Amino acid sequence: MQFHHHGYVTTDPRVQPAAGTGRSRPAELPGETDVLIVGAGPAGMVLAAQLSQYPEVTTRLIERRPGRLEVGQADGIQARSVETFQAFGFAERLIAEAFHLTAMNFWASDPGDPERIVRTQRTEDDPDGISEFPHLIINEARVLDYFAEAAANGPARITPDYGYEFTGLTVAEAADDPYPVTVTVTGARDDEKTIKARYVVGCDGAHSRVRDALGLKMTGTQALHAWAVLDALAVTDFPDIRTKCAIQSRHGSILHIPREGGYLFRMYIDLGETDAADNGAVRETTVETAIAKANQILHPYSLDVRDVPRYTVYEVGHRLTERFDDVPPGTGRTPRVFIAGDACHTHSAKAGQGMNVSMQDAFNLGWKLGQVLTGVSPETLLKTYSAERQDVAARLIAFDREWSDLMAKKPGELPPEELADFYTKTAEFPAGFLTEYPPSMITGGTAHQDLAKGFPVGKRFKSAPVVRVCDATPAHLGHHARADGRWRIYAFADAGAAELNAWAEWMRDGAWPDSLFDIKVIYPEPHEQIDISRTDRLFLPRTGPFGLIDYEKVYAADPASDIFTLRSVDRRGCVVVVRPDQYVACVLPLTARAELTDFLAQSLEAPVAAKTDAGEAVEDHRGPRQLPEPRDGAREPAALSDLLPQTAEHPRG
Amino acid sequence: MQFHHHGYVTTDPRVQPAAGTGRSRPAELPGETDVLIVGAGPAGMVLAAQLSQYPEVTTRLIERRPGRLEVGQADGIQARSVETFQAFGFAERLIAEAFHLTAMNFWASDPGDPERIVRTQRTEDDPDGISEFPHLIINEARVLDYFAEAAANGPARITPDYGYEFTGLTVAEAADDPYPVTVTVTGARDDEKTIKARYVVGCDGAHSRVRDALGLKMTGTQALHAWAVLDALAVTDFPDIRTKCAIQSRHGSILHIPREGGYLFRMYIDLGETDAADNGAVRETTVETAIAKANQILHPYSLDVRDVPRYTVYEVGHRLTERFDDVPPGTGRTPRVFIAGDACHTHSAKAGQGMNVSMQDAFNLGWKLGQVLTGVSPETLLKTYSAERQDVAARLIAFDREWSDLMAKKPGELPPEELADFYTKTAEFPAGFLTEYPPSMITGGTAHQDLAKGFPVGKRFKSAPVVRVCDATPAHLGHHARADGRWRIYAFADAGAAELNAWAEWMRDGAWPDSLFDIKVIYPEPHEQIDISRTDRLFLPRTGPFGLIDYEKVYAADPASDIFTLRSVDRRGCVVVVRPDQYVACVLPLTARAELTDFLAQSLEAPVAAKTDAGEAVEDHRGPRQLPEPRDGAREPAALSDLLPQTAEHPRG
Repeated sequence: MQFHHHGYVTTDPRVQPAAGTGRSRPAELPGETDVLIVGAGPAGMVLAAQLSQYPEVTTRLIERRPGRLEVGQADGIQARSVETFQAFGFAERLIAEAFHLTAMNFWASDPGDPERIVRTQRTEDDPDGISEFPHLIINEARVLDYFAEAAANGPARITPDYGYEFTGLTVAEAADDPYPVTVTVTGARDDEKTIKARYVVGCDGAHSRVRDALGLKMTGTQALHAWAVLDALAVTDFPDIRTKCAIQSRHGSILHIPREGGYLFRMYIDLGETDAADNGAVRETTVETAIAKANQILHPYSLDVRDVPRYTVYEVGHRLTERFDDVPPGTGRTPRVFIAGDACHTHSAKAGQGMNVSMQDAFNLGWKLGQVLTGVSPETLLKTYSAERQDVAARLIAFDREWSDLMAKKPGELPPEELADFYTKTAEFPAGFLTEYPPSMITGGTAHQDLAKGFPVGKRFKSAPVVRVCDATPAHLGHHARADGRWRIYAFADAGAAELNAWAEWMRDGAWPDSLFDIKVIYPEPHEQIDISRTDRLFLPRTGPFGLIDYEKVYAADPASDIFTLRSVDRRGCVVVVRPDQYVACVLPLTARAELTDFLAQSLEAPVAAKTDAGEAVEDHRGPRQLPEPRDGAREPAALSDLLPQTAEHPRG
Repeated sequence: MQFHHHGYVTTDPRVQPAAGTGRSRPAELPGETDVLIVGAGPAGMVLAAQLSQYPEVTTRLIERRPGRLEVGQADGIQARSVETFQAFGFAERLIAEAFHLTAMNFWASDPGDPERIVRTQRTEDDPDGISEFPHLIINEARVLDYFAEAAANGPARITPDYGYEFTGLTVAEAADDPYPVTVTVTGARDDEKTIKARYVVGCDGAHSRVRDALGLKMTGTQALHAWAVLDALAVTDFPDIRTKCAIQSRHGSILHIPREGGYLFRMYIDLGETDAADNGAVRETTVETAIAKANQILHPYSLDVRDVPRYTVYEVGHRLTERFDDVPPGTGRTPRVFIAGDACHTHSAKAGQGMNVSMQDAFNLGWKLGQVLTGVSPETLLKTYSAERQDVAARLIAFDREWSDLMAKKPGELPPEELADFYTKTAEFPAGFLTEYPPSMITGGTAHQDLAKGFPVGKRFKSAPVVRVCDATPAHLGHHARADGRWRIYAFADAGAAELNAWAEWMRDGAWPDSLFDIKVIYPEPHEQIDISRTDRLFLPRTGPFGLIDYEKVYAADPASDIFTLRSVDRRGCVVVVRPDQYVACVLPLTARAELTDFLAQSLEAPVAAKTDAGEAVEDHRGPRQLPEPRDGAREPAALSDLLPQTAEHPRG
């Protein structure tokens, strides 16, 4: 966490100074906005938190609920989501609050006495260390709270406009209309209101009206299997009540998930196959029936339910829209309306996917909107959103269908080990790490992948331990990447740094504003051997109104856990470019200079082409989106003598 | 973090339900209060946070400042303090915000060119892993913010009464006055007010008026050495600007300390010895003079100071009061007025001690006041506060004097290695872990110390890794100990648990309310081998209005890092009793039953003597201090059918 560089910060440094649109943000919904987000669920809130880093942009978020969500549906948090929370600055708080899912046990009918269940297998949740972050369970409402806080504390100071319901939209085809999307909403007082927007994002859930307005259809399976979802406080003799379990008895199946706080749990209780002619009758299944069924399945154990904070019945549907924006195939124009999250894809809740994928949809889209709206990228960048995320959703649904089918199988239909094996083998997928974007204007090819095999192009940048040189502090390289919309360029140095220094000198001749590019170096030598005063000044940018040196871009390998070895980085060094949403964009040799600028020029208009004057420009390292304006308690630069306390304080003792 | 056991909690679980005095707390300072704390610095705030766990008690905290502290003096946070933050529930947030002090470098005149300084040594801050927590630097103001939050979020909902200045007190000698201390204060509107209190704690700093009112004197050295304290933002070529350094040149000395946020630093600049006849003239040293001096010392490096958020001159004084309460030696009565923190002991800031020791003073006193005021302990318990803490302060001052003298030595007076050696060898002291309370009514003897050599009686309980059995979650045993005023009884099981089970059965025959005693078991076997349904129900207490089972008291050794080996725990098992302030009170064999009850009966009146009926009492495991009252969104226990949603929700997909 970096602060004080605009002057002393006395209060919580997580609250960034308001800037731009955040300083004059009207309380009422305005008639025009750059971005209108519809729906304050996981996708909408992530988008708001991301766009709050762009105070040049006006963003409004409407939500039909009158206020914050109190009890959410989703609760599974993949490690990939926790990485995302880290970038938004609240991972450590949410981790402290959540249930940590470290194991999954499997139960099945005892072959010797099929009326009884017995534990057949224990599995570890992440035996291979897919992420340094944990797999968590926590209520969706709390996740939204944290993102809402990040949105409110960002420079653009975004807060949801509650009590507004989306009723329709039209997109003007005239190219000269700066606000081509016209949206109608009804407010809490039933007054209809029209809002014109440059871009609209429908994050309004499985029954999305934005999706309907675009004429997009969800296609896929019809509901085939019904599950009762029971959030309960209970007294039981079932010994694994605090462990995630898949339980398959001759009376049906339960997916059992302990919840945050040490007492609550959620059971997905199998209600059997539903008939298309059933006409939703299964949804009338009472909680008493569900509890009775759970007791049957759990026999010889029993469940004495004392409180039910939430109970619902749902039928599994695996559905997907053909695209996530308003541009029909073959149409030349760039998209103006997007949909994200459950509005585009629905699936069973049992692999703990929905909320996670929705958040990644928004993380993918947010920085793209930010870059386009701040004029650094062409509008064509926005086409990559649907292209990238529709494919991810399709693969998710295929996985989820397979998992749900396995879960729904009766004992005897498959050996108990098979379910456990599937779970273990596919761990990377439910953890959120199988996403691999294909080549595009923001994802390069793999010609130089061998230089850093542990940073596969198109996959998320997998952090590794390093040591920060300036203060000898052990750090996780990826954890310094904030969700601030910046590209990361990691320069892995060759031993002795001859190539690295030549590359840095060349880079200094170009325009790489710190506001867009966070350029870090990682030396292969131990930190004591790095003389920071001989590090190229590319890696020591000046920042803030005082022109201070930012020392936090210079790292060394940790001999105890060498990032060059862990991630198979070539000892000749290389450059790893990472997108603002943390996916590896390309890997290049330190000598491949034209390739670097050519690659970035595909999606960035101004900065790469231009040349600066020589010398050290004073850049604000948090980007143009953290304008160097004083916050309460901060000081403007002035003559030193003006800045000093006039009287020395009394001594302490 | 445990919650939901009184019903579903939708908002931040760190906010505990208000109870007792917290539900009807008057905004205005009342005429009578159980505890009156004077001063909202580190000691006062810790005390407020601790007493907020006792909603049966009325606590008020007056502070003469009009509002929160904006820029504090202290900034060094020992690992022991971070352990304390963990117990109060905010360690992970403060850690994320603070500077991590992992190294200290030493600089001295270059023998070949004495006008230049060179780096002579690098040392690691905690090479031996004294604590699993880091050594931090963060402004005192933020530490106070977090404790203020803990005080406000505790059941008693304590917030400071700002703008009130303490002017005097008298203590009634009549034994029948329930509020024997009469305090006068002046308010913001200059109105004098009288408050009667059962107990008063002066946390009002080095110039304590509570101390003066008690007629206590600070004795010790007069100021001998002056230091300029410069908090600055600067551009420099000094390569260790982000590393803690002791710099000794022929022009004087600097203790250099990087600060939180990546840019700010603090320099203690040596201003030389002061003459008693100097009459404070050294305090007029200007910031320009101090900066010029720093530049001389740093030569050949230079410091271009751009902003000075704080500058002060102070002279080192090592002073201590003879006792920390109002009871003169030989007086039979129990104390009514206490002083804590800088009010009792002052010393140089350079070993980073002051704030830390002050917080431990308050952590020592808080639970004692809580236990006496809730009637579970005799008033004599309060005598242990001054007895324990005065000795700690005396030893601190002796250490600090030695350190300051070394730091103030001129080059040539001692070899450069000596300073570094002293720093490294004494690391446990400045980290806050050399405190060792002697035997008393709350600290037992060491007759059975051999059963758990790694938990020395009288020293703080040093946490170690374990695995929680119910959910296979790796945990740090000590981190589950909250600052909730409860005693901890850790039962280390013998292999096979025969002795453990006999002990548990005997314990169940006594009265050990979960509100006072948090009783945990640690098995030596791996967690998979522990059948939680065969664990004695002593370790699975019922809790909350629903009588739910608390599963979070049953642990197993982690084979990768076995607590029995790490802490030299005898394989025959043993009992380790830990005080509410985290100090080991005694170590006993599982068979030493009378010793256990006799020891606890010294300081606890009711609970140990009494016997309960057989059967499982429904206890609230967070103590009488978290009354089972519903919070917003929680439900009262009722018939199951009343508790259920009447309609199943719409399915998601």
